[in-house]
Amino acid sequence: MSLALFDQHRALLDGAMQAIATRGYWSAFNEMPSPKVYGETAHADSKQKCESCFDADFVLDQPGQQGWLSPEVSPYGVALNVRYPVCAADTLVQAGQQAMVGWQALGAAGRTGVCLEALTRLNQQSFEIAHAVMLTTGQGWMMAFQAGGPHAQDRGLEAVAYAWREQSFVPAETTWEKPQGKNPPIVMTKHYEVVGRGVALVIGCGTFPTWNTYPGLFAALATGNAVIVKPHGNAVLPAAMTVRTIRAVLAEQGLDPNLVTLCVTAQREVTQGLATHPAVKSVDFTGGNAFGQWLINNCRQAQVYAELAGVNHIVIDSTHAYKAMLGNLAFTLSLYSGQMCTTTQVILVPAGGIATDEGHKTHEQVCADLAAAIDRFLSKPEVACAVLGAIQSGDTADRIALANSGKLGTVLLASKSLSNPDFPAAKVQTPVLLACDMADEAAYMEERFGPISFVVSVPDTAAAIALSERMVNTHGALTVGVYSTDDAVVNAMTAATCRSKVALSINLTGAVFVNQSAAYSDYHGTGGNPAANASYADSAFVANRFRVVQRRYHV
Amino acid sequence: MSLALFDQHRALLDGAMQAIATRGYWSAFNEMPSPKVYGETAHADSKQKCESCFDADFVLDQPGQQGWLSPEVSPYGVALNVRYPVCAADTLVQAGQQAMVGWQALGAAGRTGVCLEALTRLNQQSFEIAHAVMLTTGQGWMMAFQAGGPHAQDRGLEAVAYAWREQSFVPAETTWEKPQGKNPPIVMTKHYEVVGRGVALVIGCGTFPTWNTYPGLFAALATGNAVIVKPHGNAVLPAAMTVRTIRAVLAEQGLDPNLVTLCVTAQREVTQGLATHPAVKSVDFTGGNAFGQWLINNCRQAQVYAELAGVNHIVIDSTHAYKAMLGNLAFTLSLYSGQMCTTTQVILVPAGGIATDEGHKTHEQVCADLAAAIDRFLSKPEVACAVLGAIQSGDTADRIALANSGKLGTVLLASKSLSNPDFPAAKVQTPVLLACDMADEAAYMEERFGPISFVVSVPDTAAAIALSERMVNTHGALTVGVYSTDDAVVNAMTAATCRSKVALSINLTGAVFVNQSAAYSDYHGTGGNPAANASYADSAFVANRFRVVQRRYHV
Repeated sequence: MSLALFDQHRALLDGAMQAIATRGYWSAFNEMPSPKVYGETAHADSKQKCESCFDADFVLDQPGQQGWLSPEVSPYGVALNVRYPVCAADTLVQAGQQAMVGWQALGAAGRTGVCLEALTRLNQQSFEIAHAVMLTTGQGWMMAFQAGGPHAQDRGLEAVAYAWREQSFVPAETTWEKPQGKNPPIVMTKHYEVVGRGVALVIGCGTFPTWNTYPGLFAALATGNAVIVKPHGNAVLPAAMTVRTIRAVLAEQGLDPNLVTLCVTAQREVTQGLATHPAVKSVDFTGGNAFGQWLINNCRQAQVYAELAGVNHIVIDSTHAYKAMLGNLAFTLSLYSGQMCTTTQVILVPAGGIATDEGHKTHEQVCADLAAAIDRFLSKPEVACAVLGAIQSGDTADRIALANSGKLGTVLLASKSLSNPDFPAAKVQTPVLLACDMADEAAYMEERFGPISFVVSVPDTAAAIALSERMVNTHGALTVGVYSTDDAVVNAMTAATCRSKVALSINLTGAVFVNQSAAYSDYHGTGGNPAANASYADSAFVANRFRVVQRRYHV
Repeated sequence: MSLALFDQHRALLDGAMQAIATRGYWSAFNEMPSPKVYGETAHADSKQKCESCFDADFVLDQPGQQGWLSPEVSPYGVALNVRYPVCAADTLVQAGQQAMVGWQALGAAGRTGVCLEALTRLNQQSFEIAHAVMLTTGQGWMMAFQAGGPHAQDRGLEAVAYAWREQSFVPAETTWEKPQGKNPPIVMTKHYEVVGRGVALVIGCGTFPTWNTYPGLFAALATGNAVIVKPHGNAVLPAAMTVRTIRAVLAEQGLDPNLVTLCVTAQREVTQGLATHPAVKSVDFTGGNAFGQWLINNCRQAQVYAELAGVNHIVIDSTHAYKAMLGNLAFTLSLYSGQMCTTTQVILVPAGGIATDEGHKTHEQVCADLAAAIDRFLSKPEVACAVLGAIQSGDTADRIALANSGKLGTVLLASKSLSNPDFPAAKVQTPVLLACDMADEAAYMEERFGPISFVVSVPDTAAAIALSERMVNTHGALTVGVYSTDDAVVNAMTAATCRSKVALSINLTGAVFVNQSAAYSDYHGTGGNPAANASYADSAFVANRFRVVQRRYHV
């Protein structure tokens, strides 16, 4: 088996292995869209390359093609009209099964090498994919580059590192020699073969088509499985580019490119049929609770790794840096118009107000100051457009309108429409901030995806902590934060989040935000509360994607 | 946290860690019931200790006790009448949840130390538990000692080693320092806490009440979970002894003994209620397909690790050691009257016969010689009784009667009743060997648990290999064997079993048998075919039993 790519990328793998062991800061891929790193003409070239996909067939040479589909509507109002191949789902499954034979035979190191090469090539394509991510999801440019490019690649590499670690524990061969007292020992040779479970289905979301897809895609691939990528209908292009690149790498290596295919369909039944196909053995899903729960309930033949909805929240007890806290929160609530699965939706503030470095602040003052901080942060239109991006879906726009109407709570800050001079047709909205009481659970205690947040009045910090724990247990959360100058409060939140199994960010007042999760260091989701049944990435994310088949015989 | 036990048992852990890495022969616990190892009076003392449980209350001091139950009927006809506490299932769950708090706080090393101490104490109790295993399951004495004692303890230790390896990868704390060019870096401290998923339910079987229970029990315990052991109604005593010993170890360490409890019930609904309880997060099950599939279909809140039924089989193509092969098969089919989930049920032999070191043997000759080999092996009553043990259940006795009737195929060797002078009431039966054609799938292609095997006539070896693959894919298998002197045949079987994901034993003619699986070296089940969705033991068996909860803050 060719280990050339494995050897070539050994430093990359070693870096990732070291990073997942220490969990300190590390990144394989430069997050700055610097011409020095990515090429002087990368930006312009890639934009053109991306645009060359518009109004054209996106050819992938997949088997079973039945037609073309052009499902995307850009939140920026750009006419994309990319036509993707529609292939028979059964044919893609069969082609994946066939391709698994050669992939299997390559062995774990060989597969790892090919995955590392694919990630490296995707990195070189970061600008192109960033354009595609921006135009399909509505992300601002910088986020589309970072989250859609290097950060997504880091998450993919992280999964490859976990997969390699677990697979490399399995020796290829051993001699088993059992002593028999004075008699000669019993001696056997045993061989252990790592085999993928079967075809993997990776279902992407409309907001992070690479960041939320690469972990499952590369975890499944590295462990010996074929992968069918089923992107969200509104964010196909970044996934299609990814699939095309991986297929090219496979073909170059003399491997069957049908190991990785793209499934584009307008029919929910096709996805459901794929997810319950007997040959499909794992399903990675990011999206809403309804379809996620359907998958968990119906895919008995597959392991389902699901990231669903949750109610992320922050408890504010007190702070030593009031202004910095407000600034940190304003950015968190504004970034990509809150269209992140990690954005804070609920901010719990004691009715009696909070102690700060600027003295006591009443509940009303905190509400007003947070609203003002958001307003101020977004006061420059070019900053606002860069940070907010565009509203990704009509549903989110409807939710903003509902929140603006005051029916869900007192409007502290209404969402305003902005215009983006570069994209006149883009739907740009500032966040809406509401106030309500702890008792108004119907308003705040379900996910309202988008730039919609609630300052919820609670009797005191203890009640806030208890409510936080209950919220995580019943509705789930990917992120929870706390602001407090009191160790007892921080300890109580630590204990509560440990019980409810959610990551906690404490007193973020600088350049790290509760909705950001760093590869190799921050687990994305714990897998232990209703918001997600798996985590990016840990051993559990990879260990059950392969099995070990042994054979033994006497020497 | 006290690491005294962890330090004390460090060599034991290191040995197991080394063994799972190399998969060579290793055992922590002596498999010979030697007075030198276990004490000169161990046998007599332990027998008496076991018998002292008869006609008495088995006191466990568990909460929520509602009464007593005495469900066991010994296959050896010994009147046991052990009365076990019946406790409210909800109370056991709540008590487990409470106990998890302190168990959690102990940390992975602390928990590992306690598990190692428990295993060591169970080892000292091997004779006592062996008596209990023998009398409740019908196993012969030597098997009850080895499989019920040291081999089960080794499987438990193996699970602890995997759990330790995965947990020890998670650093308790890290410093995350992200460079910011010429500006000072962003520095955060991050803490990572390993937390158990929740209460674990371990459902035992009637034939191997410790060997099939210890892996799940110790995997769940070591990863931070409380465990409720629900033994099979006919094999409670070995589980009850195990639970009592672990509870004693916990109490000695100042830990809440309700971390591990025994659930004895005569009602299927109680077990179903426990398995679907919202606080129960994992279910380990060994048993029949009907209830196993019910668990997989209904326990949406829990990860289910299930070992179910299968159709184990052997392909005979040719052999260089005809007599030794027949002897090996005779032992395999006789051991514990075939009441092992790993016993061969189907032997595929070409219609045209096979090449052997004794010349060509016709199909009929192979059938006759195998029947004769079994008959000869069991010709001495004392050997027969020691190897066969007793028939564990009325259902198995009924299946033997059906096979003896000739309705399932031509009777090559009828099952005979034997009497055991030490246990006059024991139900002892020799194996029944049938012959049928490949087309008679209704006869041989479903699990017929017990000493019932079929020599199935196939057109040729290629057909046998194809049938083997289909059998594994559709009905599952824990063990497959092949006899051949032809490398091409062995390679074809290797490829087929790799695809169908089942362990293969090649040309076993000595003191290793297809139905035996050695801890640390042989994976028991691959988890990749319908006979089991998990394996003893691998990373996947432990990695999803815990989650990691992190917190982070700026330095």
